[in-house]
Amino acid sequence: MKETVILDGKSLTRQELEAVVYAGARVEIQEEALIRAQEARKTVLFLTDSQKQIYGMNTGLGANKDRRITQEEFEKFNRQILYSHSVAILPLADQAWVRAAMLCRLNSFLIGTAGVQTEMILLLKEFLNQEITPLVPARGSVGLADLGNMAFLGLAMIGEGEVEYQGQKLKAQEALKKAGLKKLTLGPKDGLPMVSSNMFSVGKAALLCGKIRDLIEMSETVYAMGLEAQSYNPVFIDQRTLKITSHRGHRESLAFVNQCLEGSSIYHNGNETLYGALSFKSTCGVMGSIRDGLHYLESVVDGYLNASEDCPAVLAEEREIVSTDFFIVTGLAAALEMMDILLCHMAGLTANRIMRMCKEEFSGLPRFLRPEPSVIGYGTMQKTVAAVYNEIRHLANPASMDYFPTANESEDYGCMTPYLLLKTEKMLENLYTLTAMEAMYAAQASECQEGLVRGKGTLYAYQKIREATKRIQQDDQILGFEIEKVSSLIREKKIIADEGEHDKKGSI
Amino acid sequence: MKETVILDGKSLTRQELEAVVYAGARVEIQEEALIRAQEARKTVLFLTDSQKQIYGMNTGLGANKDRRITQEEFEKFNRQILYSHSVAILPLADQAWVRAAMLCRLNSFLIGTAGVQTEMILLLKEFLNQEITPLVPARGSVGLADLGNMAFLGLAMIGEGEVEYQGQKLKAQEALKKAGLKKLTLGPKDGLPMVSSNMFSVGKAALLCGKIRDLIEMSETVYAMGLEAQSYNPVFIDQRTLKITSHRGHRESLAFVNQCLEGSSIYHNGNETLYGALSFKSTCGVMGSIRDGLHYLESVVDGYLNASEDCPAVLAEEREIVSTDFFIVTGLAAALEMMDILLCHMAGLTANRIMRMCKEEFSGLPRFLRPEPSVIGYGTMQKTVAAVYNEIRHLANPASMDYFPTANESEDYGCMTPYLLLKTEKMLENLYTLTAMEAMYAAQASECQEGLVRGKGTLYAYQKIREATKRIQQDDQILGFEIEKVSSLIREKKIIADEGEHDKKGSI
Amino acid sequence: MKETVILDGKSLTRQELEAVVYAGARVEIQEEALIRAQEARKTVLFLTDSQKQIYGMNTGLGANKDRRITQEEFEKFNRQILYSHSVAILPLADQAWVRAAMLCRLNSFLIGTAGVQTEMILLLKEFLNQEITPLVPARGSVGLADLGNMAFLGLAMIGEGEVEYQGQKLKAQEALKKAGLKKLTLGPKDGLPMVSSNMFSVGKAALLCGKIRDLIEMSETVYAMGLEAQSYNPVFIDQRTLKITSHRGHRESLAFVNQCLEGSSIYHNGNETLYGALSFKSTCGVMGSIRDGLHYLESVVDGYLNASEDCPAVLAEEREIVSTDFFIVTGLAAALEMMDILLCHMAGLTANRIMRMCKEEFSGLPRFLRPEPSVIGYGTMQKTVAAVYNEIRHLANPASMDYFPTANESEDYGCMTPYLLLKTEKMLENLYTLTAMEAMYAAQASECQEGLVRGKGTLYAYQKIREATKRIQQDDQILGFEIEKVSSLIREKKIIADEGEHDKKGSI
Amino acid sequence: MKETVILDGKSLTRQELEAVVYAGARVEIQEEALIRAQEARKTVLFLTDSQKQIYGMNTGLGANKDRRITQEEFEKFNRQILYSHSVAILPLADQAWVRAAMLCRLNSFLIGTAGVQTEMILLLKEFLNQEITPLVPARGSVGLADLGNMAFLGLAMIGEGEVEYQGQKLKAQEALKKAGLKKLTLGPKDGLPMVSSNMFSVGKAALLCGKIRDLIEMSETVYAMGLEAQSYNPVFIDQRTLKITSHRGHRESLAFVNQCLEGSSIYHNGNETLYGALSFKSTCGVMGSIRDGLHYLESVVDGYLNASEDCPAVLAEEREIVSTDFFIVTGLAAALEMMDILLCHMAGLTANRIMRMCKEEFSGLPRFLRPEPSVIGYGTMQKTVAAVYNEIRHLANPASMDYFPTANESEDYGCMTPYLLLKTEKMLENLYTLTAMEAMYAAQASECQEGLVRGKGTLYAYQKIREATKRIQQDDQILGFEIEKVSSLIREKKIIADEGEHDKKGSI
Repeated sequence: MKETVILDGKSLTRQELEAVVYAGARVEIQEEALIRAQEARKTVLFLTDSQKQIYGMNTGLGANKDRRITQEEFEKFNRQILYSHSVAILPLADQAWVRAAMLCRLNSFLIGTAGVQTEMILLLKEFLNQEITPLVPARGSVGLADLGNMAFLGLAMIGEGEVEYQGQKLKAQEALKKAGLKKLTLGPKDGLPMVSSNMFSVGKAALLCGKIRDLIEMSETVYAMGLEAQSYNPVFIDQRTLKITSHRGHRESLAFVNQCLEGSSIYHNGNETLYGALSFKSTCGVMGSIRDGLHYLESVVDGYLNASEDCPAVLAEEREIVSTDFFIVTGLAAALEMMDILLCHMAGLTANRIMRMCKEEFSGLPRFLRPEPSVIGYGTMQKTVAAVYNEIRHLANPASMDYFPTANESEDYGCMTPYLLLKTEKMLENLYTLTAMEAMYAAQASECQEGLVRGKGTLYAYQKIREATKRIQQDDQILGFEIEKVSSLIREKKIIADEGEHDKKGSI
Repeated sequence: MKETVILDGKSLTRQELEAVVYAGARVEIQEEALIRAQEARKTVLFLTDSQKQIYGMNTGLGANKDRRITQEEFEKFNRQILYSHSVAILPLADQAWVRAAMLCRLNSFLIGTAGVQTEMILLLKEFLNQEITPLVPARGSVGLADLGNMAFLGLAMIGEGEVEYQGQKLKAQEALKKAGLKKLTLGPKDGLPMVSSNMFSVGKAALLCGKIRDLIEMSETVYAMGLEAQSYNPVFIDQRTLKITSHRGHRESLAFVNQCLEGSSIYHNGNETLYGALSFKSTCGVMGSIRDGLHYLESVVDGYLNASEDCPAVLAEEREIVSTDFFIVTGLAAALEMMDILLCHMAGLTANRIMRMCKEEFSGLPRFLRPEPSVIGYGTMQKTVAAVYNEIRHLANPASMDYFPTANESEDYGCMTPYLLLKTEKMLENLYTLTAMEAMYAAQASECQEGLVRGKGTLYAYQKIREATKRIQQDDQILGFEIEKVSSLIREKKIIADEGEHDKKGSI
Repeated sequence: MKETVILDGKSLTRQELEAVVYAGARVEIQEEALIRAQEARKTVLFLTDSQKQIYGMNTGLGANKDRRITQEEFEKFNRQILYSHSVAILPLADQAWVRAAMLCRLNSFLIGTAGVQTEMILLLKEFLNQEITPLVPARGSVGLADLGNMAFLGLAMIGEGEVEYQGQKLKAQEALKKAGLKKLTLGPKDGLPMVSSNMFSVGKAALLCGKIRDLIEMSETVYAMGLEAQSYNPVFIDQRTLKITSHRGHRESLAFVNQCLEGSSIYHNGNETLYGALSFKSTCGVMGSIRDGLHYLESVVDGYLNASEDCPAVLAEEREIVSTDFFIVTGLAAALEMMDILLCHMAGLTANRIMRMCKEEFSGLPRFLRPEPSVIGYGTMQKTVAAVYNEIRHLANPASMDYFPTANESEDYGCMTPYLLLKTEKMLENLYTLTAMEAMYAAQASECQEGLVRGKGTLYAYQKIREATKRIQQDDQILGFEIEKVSSLIREKKIIADEGEHDKKGSI
Repeated sequence: MKETVILDGKSLTRQELEAVVYAGARVEIQEEALIRAQEARKTVLFLTDSQKQIYGMNTGLGANKDRRITQEEFEKFNRQILYSHSVAILPLADQAWVRAAMLCRLNSFLIGTAGVQTEMILLLKEFLNQEITPLVPARGSVGLADLGNMAFLGLAMIGEGEVEYQGQKLKAQEALKKAGLKKLTLGPKDGLPMVSSNMFSVGKAALLCGKIRDLIEMSETVYAMGLEAQSYNPVFIDQRTLKITSHRGHRESLAFVNQCLEGSSIYHNGNETLYGALSFKSTCGVMGSIRDGLHYLESVVDGYLNASEDCPAVLAEEREIVSTDFFIVTGLAAALEMMDILLCHMAGLTANRIMRMCKEEFSGLPRFLRPEPSVIGYGTMQKTVAAVYNEIRHLANPASMDYFPTANESEDYGCMTPYLLLKTEKMLENLYTLTAMEAMYAAQASECQEGLVRGKGTLYAYQKIREATKRIQQDDQILGFEIEKVSSLIREKKIIADEGEHDKKGSI
């Protein structure tokens, strides 16, 4: 990953985000962009004594829009905004999430429509570079700007609340001192842009895109293991069909699976029957649609990553501040809901594959893949498969539609993005477990298949799985423990070789 | 609309589909495409006595793949396929739906992977051109090819079942005779491609795209009526914000609403407060996301309209028939689920706008828009608004995830497209009612606003509404009847001027 | 059924309701009860010029509570109530539903808390006895009194709107004349009690209880057919286990199934293995829980059938009119939601049984129950099973939680009962189809089992099924048509012998 | 609470369960019951060399029923059962849950249908009395006996896995030694009854009943605070209406609220208007239905607490072991699903009350209850209210219907009870937060109401709330922290006085 990311408010990528969030890449600000942000600030200062109502600058917020704020009140009013908006509730967001939110908001400050003081921009950059991470509760936003969460970032900047710094939980004020930083003094229109941002959602969504892509690749790898273990007719992954399909995801999935199986005996197993289950025969078709859904989500996230979200927005050239709809992120909510439904389709496919593999009639292998009848083996683990699938199905129900009007009904729309993200994350966690179980079944199945030669990718995965959990032979195992071990393997993406990963991503 | 549509299996558009389905445009087949289809047929005939298992040609179907079909059995076997697959159940699909299915399947036959006899292709064309429309039940498919529905098209072609012809319900055989057409005699691999097609779903989805677009425009028109009627500050639809948004749908929505309000007094009403409800202030932001969702659905539908769906697929050049995943339409299912969720967001916005308009505090108009206190007016109609919203919310729950493995578990994946379409259609029907009620409220509101000058589009809509239902003045009305009248107006898209409509669509 | 039902406001049963609704039993009013109702009316008249606000008598409704109604306005105001509350929308409720609503409201008028004029009570009785049935749209209520629907009953009584009378659709005024009845002139507090009633929901719920009970019995009958056809080990329905179960429904189900199988060869088939699927082995356990759920729903419905629903309620003894919560029917909503979930469990069980029956490994019968391999038979019909199950699963999602505050947020609670009823009814309709398909499979299965002797109940059902649809032998059938025929059989409860039916119900 | 609970397999109450689980009451076994259990064991031993297939005794489990187990294999086979069934996954169930499961299973062993060795019964008793609590993962069961969870109890008894003992996490073997207990040696039919039990679900459900009751009372208490704070007309809680209602829950709710308000100024506030929101006026009606739903859940749980769940079940008198459906707990699943829907209704009511309280038009108090305009106060916290409501709404979606057939489709029914319980618990956790926020609003509201005299119960609650969080006066607060504090208060049921609590429960 590159070591420095230069922000300009226009071109932040998900890859750069990951570099900063996970790999500690340094953040710099493009000069031109900083000037743009400062021009916006000038407009704000120019307009502070305008007679016109400018929302959140010289007016109260929400249903209190009718209150007038004077110059003397700016510092206190903006501080009150941070206090009163810090309504988010536990659990805490993890460090990656908070860093993503900071980076994204920092980037969107540079679009030049926020108008906050330069010190706020620079301090946010320092938080990222010195790895000062405010403690931010994850829940409480309705996706109409993540007010309650973003307020905790603002609090840390004025030296209130707590942060994580150098591996410790510290009072913000103390951490600032240790890091040699000065806390902010708020001025006009500093509070509102700080809280009125969806970047807590957008940043997290960007991170989840990467996790979903990883999961797709791991699921396809484990699928390839099972395909090979059962000696399916290779015609079902025949790449010649690609020339007559126009679906991008389908092409990617077929290519990935074939790449995984490079060198495998499956291509020469002599099985010419068409018998088998759709969950094995048409996997690439379904996974292709799931990949297409992810492409859509990625394109939506990319759109929001570099879009102004300020309301009101400063138009520096016109020396005006205008009302906007830019805090609306319904597009993100909808794409996430669709993704969750697709993830449930993936889970169904996985669960079905497990059930079919256990069945001698389909797999040609011993029932429940038992090496000998006196062992019970993986039979009962099917219940865990069904239970985890069930949980995924429940989580996949949509959640963006049930907003409750607030602010005396003046805020009568919301789309609940942070909860959607938490639910997607919980689905992923369950999918790790489900994929882990499929990996256990597929590894065991492959050992039942005589004469098997593994492909490049399936061999790698097989070895990692066997480092984590032993084959069932003479004795039964306490399976709950084994499931947890393999789940960790999946969560950390250990079953796919690291080298060349990024090339691979790029090449499709 | 153009009068003839030439099919080539590669370039069918939704506009052409509408022309054939609704306006009776004639269908022709491009010569090159017909030759391609015939080449595929030759491959089929060449392979009929191959030793290799070719699914549905010389093997049984589904879990009966292990049965071998001989040459002598072709006619009977393919007829049995039509019989045994005609498992769809009532209600009947309407004529437009069936015509769409026929046109789309005719087009996809021309891709050259189906390999059916030329007579089948030509007869399907005649069905369209002579307006012979088989009676096809709408339910029963699991979205894994619409077997149960498509079978009824096949039945009509061999002179069985019933059709609609010249305004009458006739036996298929009789209609063929009247129209001077010969019924088909089935040969090898004729039955499977006829039934194993998702075009019953894809064709309907294409039609629904048009209906959703119409609804969006009507909803925005009625929204504009209310905005104007309540003299909202025009800053909320200020097009200057467009230069800093990158969301396509948002731009379209803002442009459409402003076009509707051309000439309206709203631009000069002197209201400079920022007070109001989000359902009026941020409508274009949300509608923009809904429009973006529709763009995605359209792109997905367009992809399927010209894609091979044959499994197995004939590769004429290679003289082979290969297994494929082309019958998987998960991408369509997911896009429909997302659309339904977005339609529910639209419904929530509509319902909220109605509630806000009735409230003097928001609208500045009399409570419940009553012209005088002795009239109850539209107060109780809010219950109908809430009831219809509730129904929409219920329908918006996803339905693609709950498939049930069939064919002795060998068909363990499905994505339920036809039910999704029926549910989208039912949501639209409810949205017509909801939009109709908003139209009644908005028209009444506009009459309470002194000095109002209507915009071009809002005036047109207002006049149409007042032709359908009278203003409430001295007396209460039996409102259920009025709601039905205005719902018809919306269902038939009467509140938007026809001229230039298509230009308008094209111009965005 | 008894020929006259005497109402007293305290003891109306579901059986009496069915007698009046379906079998045209005459309705009489107990004298004491009529006097009680008249005492309430006296209190109303006594209080008409009270200074105290009495909701809906001398005040406006809903958010218009602050308006004062004078004596001169009573007729017009109460008429306006009917007009403005007639906000229900299509489709029309069927005749049985409307009659149920009328009977239940008539009964609850006799509790003596409504205070309507005697003429209204007597006219409602005449509507029932002379079979004058107003046309009432079914949708539009939020379950907070079925205002929009009940208003149409009131309209008919004042000679407005339309009714069904002697097989014809007539203007209400005309029908009244034909029947020799006088239309009502409304007085104080006549309108509100007419519209502010949940009896449109409660009456329908009572009818659905009967339909659900019928369905349960038919489902158990068809289950018994399959059990017998596959020669399951009779131990799974061994009644000795009853002495150690305390679940009422379980006992009922086991008893019913054994009664059905009286005389069957299943008891002597010599099958002592424990092999089989839970959907066959544990059916009585699950059906028992479903029966228990129905018992709960019945007890809830019975509670509402004879409960005051008036708000405000007249306390004749105290000569007062007090505010109440009696229009809240959350208990009914919750019981319906639970019932729907249980109906979906029933559907899942049914669908699973069908899949297992088709599988030689479970049934010991030919695959897909094909009499010979050249017939495709009922294989593809499994898709329809899966599609119908999916629809049931979707409908089973709850719908009572998504109310939308109305009346300027003063009516901020609702529980959506009429939509719940429509959804339950739609689920039943789908369950008829599903049960019909199971009946087709089970009949075919029984013909594959040599040496089968049918039980009393299973024989009866078998014969009826075979009158409706033929066995599959040499040829495939157009199955969609067959499914519709058998569905009608189930819908009309033709597969269970009529004689003794009521005794049977009573005896448990 | 009483100090010793004597178990007899017939009469365990939820109160006794709470005494053992929470208050460490000692457990004794009734002599007669122990003899009954031992008679069952004798039957097992008598039948061990029977030729008849006895499931799980001399046959394999699930789809391996066809395997025959010999006498020599008993120990190993039963140990393998424990190993292979220990498929539950994290997180761990808390101590109370595990103790509840142990107590309930111990009790159901005494019914005399399990037939396990006496040592197992006595050891389970010791685990309870010496507070040895196995570590049991909470997820992984499909509600068809909680195999995966119960297996961990069995493991601890044979000295495997881990337990909590004397505040430490220890290896089971070590803890047994410390406690002076001998680990079990398994014999015939010991493993199956240990794992094949739903008591992990039933025990937890019993505990949740108590938590739901507590929540209802707290919610009604906080409701009463708001009612009083806003000086609602006391007619809305007029107990005279009780004489005409037959709904048990309604009576209880009205009584509880009036008891809370004993001594309050609300009864003499002179407010005679009928104005207000249903969420305040009809609360007791809705809460009554929720209480009725809880009564149903309680009755269902009570039914399962003392019911045999053994399959196969030993019939000691007949010296037989018969197959049963007793492991089916659909009734519990359905009652839980209904309860969750009702809890969501409660949440909606709560959220609506908060919104109405903040609105001067309804409350007669300052907007958002701000003591002065320069404070923002509790305005933004409404977002957290909406977010938490949304989460509750999502969780309330049913989860029992989406089982996935396992064991080669032979186990084709499940009802997912443990996940239902986890979801109910998560809903309760969210409802604590929601109720906490209502408490904050109501306390603040009460301070805005001049001349208020609090009732006995509302005063108590008010004081506790003010100990936890300060009134908002001159300055804004970081509200996220305050919400957490008050949530803890609610979670621990601190706002209701302890004394007399049980009398109160008993008295209704």
